[in-house]
Amino acid sequence: MFIAMNRFRIAPGREDDFEAIWRGRRSYLDAVSGFREFHLLKGPADETRTLYASHSVWDSREAFEAWTRSDAFQKAHGQARAPEGTYLGPPEFEGFDVVL
Amino acid sequence: MFIAMNRFRIAPGREDDFEAIWRGRRSYLDAVSGFREFHLLKGPADETRTLYASHSVWDSREAFEAWTRSDAFQKAHGQARAPEGTYLGPPEFEGFDVVL
Repeated sequence: MFIAMNRFRIAPGREDDFEAIWRGRRSYLDAVSGFREFHLLKGPADETRTLYASHSVWDSREAFEAWTRSDAFQKAHGQARAPEGTYLGPPEFEGFDVVL
Repeated sequence: MFIAMNRFRIAPGREDDFEAIWRGRRSYLDAVSGFREFHLLKGPADETRTLYASHSVWDSREAFEAWTRSDAFQKAHGQARAPEGTYLGPPEFEGFDVVL
């Protein structure tokens, strides 16, 4: 089992813009081999940023990596983005292998 | 749904010590109301540290917080720790509400 997370630092006050993009987004994940589930997570906030994370669970790291090379991945990432000023930097990817 | 993660920065070469502690640990979580599942995750590594994260899924933030005030929590956190030099700092807690 493998968990892929992207961490997003969002400008305070822009949380609704960011969430709206995700609500309107088609992930094209349901048909992808090895995909289990997806969630958008809202993490801690302070005066400088609100942390969000995309969180997807896969059968294996290999299944996730195959998806990143697929047409479905290209389609999912070619959609609308939140307005300028929403993101405080690029997303930070972290992949996790399930040890226990 | 709520996901509680603790991020651990582990000294390179000490990964087995860290994992051994978790393998031998009793979590006392199975009987806790609102608890769904637990995993220990191994994340990215570089020459300075290996990132691990504990990852537990709960019905709600309230269920998680009630657990942190419980006897079961005290018992789970009173167990053996990894040898000195394993941890490069205190764990960093991040709680995530599931938005989508």
